[in-house]
Order: sequence, then structure tokens, then C-alpha cells
Amino acid sequence: MSTSCIPFVAKYYKDHSDEILADLITFLRFQTISAQPAYKTEILKCGDWLKAYLERMQFKVTVWQTGGNPVIYAENLSAGPDKPTVLIYNHYDVQPVDPLDLWHSPPFSPVIKEGEIYARGANDNKGQCLYVLQALKALLAKDKKLPLNIKLCIEGEEETGSLGLSEIVKKKQKELAADYLLVVDVGVPSLKEPAVTLGVRGLVTMDLSVQCASHDVHSGMEGGRIPNPIHILANLIAKAHDKSGKVAIPGFYDDVAFLSQEERDNLHFDFDEIAYKELHGTHAVGGEKDLHPTERVWLRPTLEVNGITGGYSGDGFKTVIPALASAKISCRLVPNQQTEIVLEKVKHFFESMSSPGIKITLNAHHSGGNAMRTSPTSKLVIAAKQAFSEVFHIPCKAILEGGSIPITAQLAKASGADVAWIGLGLASDCIHAPNEHFGIERIEKGMQVIARTVELLIN
Amino acid sequence: MSTSCIPFVAKYYKDHSDEILADLITFLRFQTISAQPAYKTEILKCGDWLKAYLERMQFKVTVWQTGGNPVIYAENLSAGPDKPTVLIYNHYDVQPVDPLDLWHSPPFSPVIKEGEIYARGANDNKGQCLYVLQALKALLAKDKKLPLNIKLCIEGEEETGSLGLSEIVKKKQKELAADYLLVVDVGVPSLKEPAVTLGVRGLVTMDLSVQCASHDVHSGMEGGRIPNPIHILANLIAKAHDKSGKVAIPGFYDDVAFLSQEERDNLHFDFDEIAYKELHGTHAVGGEKDLHPTERVWLRPTLEVNGITGGYSGDGFKTVIPALASAKISCRLVPNQQTEIVLEKVKHFFESMSSPGIKITLNAHHSGGNAMRTSPTSKLVIAAKQAFSEVFHIPCKAILEGGSIPITAQLAKASGADVAWIGLGLASDCIHAPNEHFGIERIEKGMQVIARTVELLIN
Repeated sequence: MSTSCIPFVAKYYKDHSDEILADLITFLRFQTISAQPAYKTEILKCGDWLKAYLERMQFKVTVWQTGGNPVIYAENLSAGPDKPTVLIYNHYDVQPVDPLDLWHSPPFSPVIKEGEIYARGANDNKGQCLYVLQALKALLAKDKKLPLNIKLCIEGEEETGSLGLSEIVKKKQKELAADYLLVVDVGVPSLKEPAVTLGVRGLVTMDLSVQCASHDVHSGMEGGRIPNPIHILANLIAKAHDKSGKVAIPGFYDDVAFLSQEERDNLHFDFDEIAYKELHGTHAVGGEKDLHPTERVWLRPTLEVNGITGGYSGDGFKTVIPALASAKISCRLVPNQQTEIVLEKVKHFFESMSSPGIKITLNAHHSGGNAMRTSPTSKLVIAAKQAFSEVFHIPCKAILEGGSIPITAQLAKASGADVAWIGLGLASDCIHAPNEHFGIERIEKGMQVIARTVELLIN
Repeated sequence: MSTSCIPFVAKYYKDHSDEILADLITFLRFQTISAQPAYKTEILKCGDWLKAYLERMQFKVTVWQTGGNPVIYAENLSAGPDKPTVLIYNHYDVQPVDPLDLWHSPPFSPVIKEGEIYARGANDNKGQCLYVLQALKALLAKDKKLPLNIKLCIEGEEETGSLGLSEIVKKKQKELAADYLLVVDVGVPSLKEPAVTLGVRGLVTMDLSVQCASHDVHSGMEGGRIPNPIHILANLIAKAHDKSGKVAIPGFYDDVAFLSQEERDNLHFDFDEIAYKELHGTHAVGGEKDLHPTERVWLRPTLEVNGITGGYSGDGFKTVIPALASAKISCRLVPNQQTEIVLEKVKHFFESMSSPGIKITLNAHHSGGNAMRTSPTSKLVIAAKQAFSEVFHIPCKAILEGGSIPITAQLAKASGADVAWIGLGLASDCIHAPNEHFGIERIEKGMQVIARTVELLIN
């Protein structure tokens, strides 16, 4: 193996930082909110921009049309069939931006302040996607060709459950075939604690609604007599957890995998209560009270209400009893829970509380995916850990991720590759929230980690 | 006493129906939503229109400026000091119109279909205000002058708690002084069951909020660890009622007045379960399950959540755990509950469930009022009952109203008048809801009821 590419990549960043930042800003300006159909044009424009960008990088690009948003697939296989192939996954879609009034600058007009770039997608996932592309550009600049075969899969529906990619992934087995799959959409506990992620939770999302009357009624004329769907919905939500914070739906934890002591020992379970309070302004008092806060996020499934609406919430007051109230609910899953089985239990739990005049309906969204874990001793995990250690000059740890990248399991299966999740996100980046941001320094470090990981996989 | 004015008023309506309907449509076109500051200009325009309209009716009009919306005060005292004075209350403001997508025609573009006029305010209260004005016009047409002194108080903040009028009502005691106060803002059980209303419930409204984190967080990265304010708010709402449907806040029912058997016997307690299901699409299963459905609305206080919001409720899904969730709550009160005492108990109940990292806040709106009842044997009630009986050719009943007209108690005190609530609203009119409507026939009947009631008060 040749000497490490890290110094070259560091110099490459130094020489090209203005151009790299300009490209990041261009990328961030596309309003690629996949949850909201109004932004479809922005999605398509961003896909076109990525295609052109990758073509200029000596990649062969194909835009995979799907029932949803296009997937940008790119490959550079010039290393030849005797070299391994790495498939790298990113996404170009972003979360919705509301509540918009809490942003300090417009979400799609990137602003750099004190070394951080603020914009929707700055971390999740455009910032992380961009340093992957820059790492590959640096490697191309170093030897005029890549040291192994690279395939890129950059999708446009991660934030809504990867429906489009999910539809076509089986048909694209040949294109996706790889030895290693790097999912670059996660983070590290801190920049002093580099870490590779060995697994993600699964996800199912659903809408729960309670319909009582056929129309809204006056709260004076009917208050005390007509059923109030907000009260009923509140009761349903209250009943979904017991006093200890456990999900109270029968059988919810049935298939949760037991973690061996060896597996536990391999994971970095630290939790800093003071730092947590400082970062989030509250204590880690949610979920299962008898478990370690980190265990609750990594090893335990959840049921969370992500949105609730009913009646009047505007200025002033409206003395109405609404006909309908509804909630958006998600469950995070762990091995070996199955999305369909969990959904069935949740649906039965809620809908069985319907009664005459009170209609309770649970509709699952057609997306989501099971949890997934990878081996701590795979070549890919070992290479990524070494790369992190070399870039940060600190031993790299192994962690799990509470979030979900639902397409991972299908991608791993279709590609036949070993998987690892890496990234340089921080809990303080405000992803999925107002004022999302990402450190400029992490663009540079991310390039080094990606380039070095790839390099370590050659032999 | 001269013969009844009813035949004259009936003929007057027949001769002027086109003009009367045109005036109603003009009145309904003003977008006088008092809850939403954006509609202030419409409020002012409507006030100007009313002033000009009343001046053309030989009334002396004064616009009372308040901290809120103007009150239109008008008087015609030409009957002279030896005749009694009737103060009539109406309001020109309306409820908000959302959910807008459920309206079959735009709320401020009145449409007449099968004898009903559809628009926000069609019943509450512009339709009812308009027939009051037409009744007076008919009486003026009959004898060129009114048979007794009439004062009109038409306010612009009934739907938000009458703050403006409440501020000035004490200072206007001289102007408001009257023998009788007719509050024309209620209804009848059906057009085959004419009824005079002997009391209204009181009202207090408030905002309940739960703040956990300082910012929204990702439901994967933090789900199972960070407190979810929607769950906590749902628990608070669930705890506010016990299983029997009673409000579970300690002391909530402490001051509720006991009704004597004589008082009960005087009230018309009928409840038609089948008609209720047909009208509302649900059963009367809300509130205190062991009480008669009508008793729950007339004689019992309530705590109802009128709106709830938290997290993401737009298209698709957003995997967020919000920092904040909030609800709008109202309590309907009965004699002898006091708004301040009830508020204090509700506030203590909720806020005492705050804990480290979870801040629960209850803020009362500065409006509302106590419940009020009137004597079933007052001259005003007897006159109104006789007028209803004559117009509908059916004996008139006595009922209570579950809704609130919070300013009534203050108006009654300031005017020194006996009070009665009358009106021709129906439960099926969809007031405070999409597709509010009012029967054209009721404009005609309302004119007759008002004119005849006034006439019966002369001696």
C-alpha cells in the first residue's frame, strides 16, 4: 500500500477551499424538500445539477427515474475488475423548514458564521454528500484516476422513506453490486470522539385520527355533551406509554434482540448529563426511565408523536369543538422487530378503542424499514475506524445511531456489500430543526476520512 | 293596548323582502373576524356601514371607541320619558372561518340555497341583528314613531370576549340605562318548539403550553430519551377528566349552584337521541356520562380543549420531536362559579405538573364572564314568551343556553334592566363551523317576534 493520502487531501482542500465552499452553497440553495410536492421542480433542478457535477468529475451518470424523485447513480469503474468496488450512499433531499419564524436566516440562503454554514441540509445530507464528492475529486487529482471502483447512489427521498429507490433497487442489482457500502449520513459524539456507526434503528410512520361529529360544533351549545376528538386523541396518546416510560402497546417489545455483553462492551455508551442539558435545554427524562439514556436511543424501540393538530390554533380564540383531531406517529425499531408486525400491533391497539360515534383510524405511510446492524470486525468497519483515528489523531470508537436510514437494508442486500455508516454530524447541528448548520472544518476532515477509508480498502 | 303589530310586520316583510335580503347580504360581506387582527379594516368598515344604516332609521348613533373594536350605540327615545326603554344587544363581529376547505361556498360571499343563506355570521349574529333592525323599521313604518324608547348596543368583539365593551360599560351607565335588556343572540330547539332562554353559561379561555427542549430535535437521534411535549400535553389533557367524564380538577365543581325542583320543572329538558345522531353524526357521549345530555349543557360546567398544536402537521412526515406543544382550552361555567376562582384552580392543576426540563404554563385570556340566569316570571320573559307563542301558534317554552354571552352580566348591571335572551338560531345552523347558515323564513319570523315583544312591553 502506498503512503497515506491524508496530507495530499489536506493540501487539495487548502488549494480549492473557495471553490468547494461555493459548490456547497450552490448545492444548499436548491429547495429540495421531498415531503412537500410543491418543491418537485427544485428536486429536479438539483438532480440535474448533481448529474452535471458528477460528469465533470469523470463519472458516468445515470438518472434513475422512479415513481417518486429521481436517484442520481454515478460510477467510475476505471480501476478495473481486479480492484474492489465501494458503493457510497447520500441523499440530496431535505426536511421541511417550518417553523420558519425560528430561523435566524432564510433556510435556503446559506450563511457562514463563526466557521459554521447555516442552511437546511447543511449537515443532512448535502454537507456530507459534498465532502464525499470532494474526497473523490482529491483522489482523482492525486493519481489522475481512482484507486478502486466507486459507485455513488444519491437519492431524493430519504426524508420521506426512500419510496422511489425502494421500488427499483431490486432491478438495479447489477449496477449496485459492490464489495463495500458506505452510508455517509450519520455523525460522531463529538470531534474529540471520532466513531464509526455499527447500526441504525428502523422506522415506521403513520397517521392516527379521531373523528367524532360530522362537522365542527360550538363549544358552548355542545360542550359537555358531544365527544371532543382532541380529548380522545390525548387519551390514546397517554395510554400508549406506561408510567415507567415504556410503550404500553401489547407485544411491542416482543422481538427486541438481546445484546450480548461482548456486543455491549464494544460500544461507547458515554452520556454527559450536563452537556446534554446545555445543548438541548432539558433533561434526558423521556422514554424508559430505568435505562441508560444512550441505551434508550440505540437499543430500544420508541413510539413518538411527531405532530398533533385539531381545532383552532390561530390568533385569539375560537370556541369550537372540532369534528376531527389527528396525530403523526413514528416508531423507531431495533433488531429483530419487523415493520409490518409492529404496525399491526399499533393499529390494533388504537383502532380497538373506537366506539359508537367515535371513529379511530390508523393509517401507515408506505415507507420505512427495519433496523440494521453490521459486524464490528468487518474490513470496512476496520478501515473506517483507522481512517478516523488517523485524521483526528484519537482512537476511533464504535457507536450505534438512533436515527434511521430505511433504505440501507435493501441497498446492502441488492449490492451484496458489507455496510458501515459514517459521517461527521454533531448532535448540535439542529438537523430536522430550525437553524441547521455544519462546520466548515468538517468538510475538510470529511474529505480526509472518506479518501483514506477508500484507500485502505484497496487490498 | 292596540291590536297586535304582527300582521303589519308580516306585510311589511312581504313588501320589502328584496331590500331586506340585499341589506343582509351587504352586512354579511364584511369580513369582521374579531379574533384575527388582519381583519381590523373590515371591522371598521362594517361599523361605519351600521352607523349610516341606523342613522337612516331615525336613530341617533354614537360610535364608542374602545381599546378593541368600536361599539355601535344607537338610540331612538322619541317615545318620551313616560314610556319604558328597551336595550337590545347584538354583535357584528364573527368567528374565524377555518377550516376554509370545508366551506361549500366562500364564507363572505353569501349564497342562498333552498331557503337558507350561507355565510359566516348568517346566524351568529348578523342574521339575528338584521331582523332586529327590520322589526324596528317596520314599527317605524307603522306609526311613524316607535311605541317605546329603544337603545341598540351592537358590539364588535363578542367572539373574543367583549373586551372593548367591557372596559367602557361602567362609564356608559347613563346611556345604557333601560327597563329591559333583550340579548338577541341565541336560538330555539326547533321551529316547532319556540322558546325563551333564561340563562347562559359563563366562559373563561386560556392557553396551555408544554416546553421541553430549547429547539426541535430529530426523533431518531433523540427519540426515547428527550421528553416529548406532545406526550406530556396529551397526558395533561387526559388527566383533566376522570373516567365518568367529570372534570378531575380539584374543587372544579365546588360553587356549582343547586337547581330547585321548581326551577327544573320550568325548563324544557327534551333530548332526541335519533335527531342528535342525524344532525351531528355522533352520539351525545361527551361529558358527564351519568347526567341527562341536556343537563350537561345547561346546568354543568365543562373544560374543553378547543385546539391543539405541536410538531409537524403538513404534507408527508417530519421525524421531529418538537420543543413545544400547546392547547387552547375553555371552561363553560354555571351559577355560582367565579371565573377567577376557576382559572386559579385550572392553572394550579396543570402548572403543578411541571418538573425539571418540562415547563408547563397556563395563561388565561383577558376576557370571559360569569354565567347568568334570569327570572322565569319577569315581565320581559312573559312578553317574549307571548310574542313567540303568537308568531308560531305554539306555546312557548323556557330553556337555558349552553353558550356564553359574557358581556350580558355587565350590561344588565350597567343598564339596571331585566334581561332575557331570545333568538331564532337552530343547532343545525353550523355556527362557529364551516357552512354557517340561517333560514330566510326566520328573518321574517324574527322581525315579528321582536316587534311584538317590544309592543307587549309598552304598558
